[in-house]
Amino acid sequence: MTVKLVVLYTPPANADGFDEHYLGVHGPLAQTIPGLLHFESARLVGAADGGAQTYSRIAELSFADQAALGSEQGKATAADYQQIAPPGSRMFVAAVDE
Amino acid sequence: MTVKLVVLYTPPANADGFDEHYLGVHGPLAQTIPGLLHFESARLVGAADGGAQTYSRIAELSFADQAALGSEQGKATAADYQQIAPPGSRMFVAAVDE
Repeated sequence: MTVKLVVLYTPPANADGFDEHYLGVHGPLAQTIPGLLHFESARLVGAADGGAQTYSRIAELSFADQAALGSEQGKATAADYQQIAPPGSRMFVAAVDE
Repeated sequence: MTVKLVVLYTPPANADGFDEHYLGVHGPLAQTIPGLLHFESARLVGAADGGAQTYSRIAELSFADQAALGSEQGKATAADYQQIAPPGSRMFVAAVDE
């Protein structure tokens, strides 16, 4: 079963600085995790339901095997996440519908 | 630019009934929207950050053109969403990073 990590970032205080780090450092670091099948990140540019802009970015990482997260690169990515994720950011484990 | 709808469902009161409708009716209905490039849905089976299970399902719909949502099938899907989405569910518009 494909396991997917879904990461939701709340709006950062310094949006430009965050994007620079995210696109220049964090995204590329995440993509070094062994066993990563697919990586996609996106800016959340609006709330289609007219509600609050609770989150400003989403990232999804698909793995064939959850063990990848215990790798050196997985740990480095997790440590960088702790540095950059604004308070209230969330991370879920997803089971993709077949 | 690819436009992606990201839908986050809060946990339904009747999980089995919700899944039955979601997988049997709502997902297939969404996939009739003209101009849909990609559809993926997944159950959120755990919070990787140890936080609350705020959302229990995610769906993503990619379109080449936002006009698709104004189609008859887009409107039917939106109406069905209003029927099934538990309170607190969210829908965001995303711009995918290149």
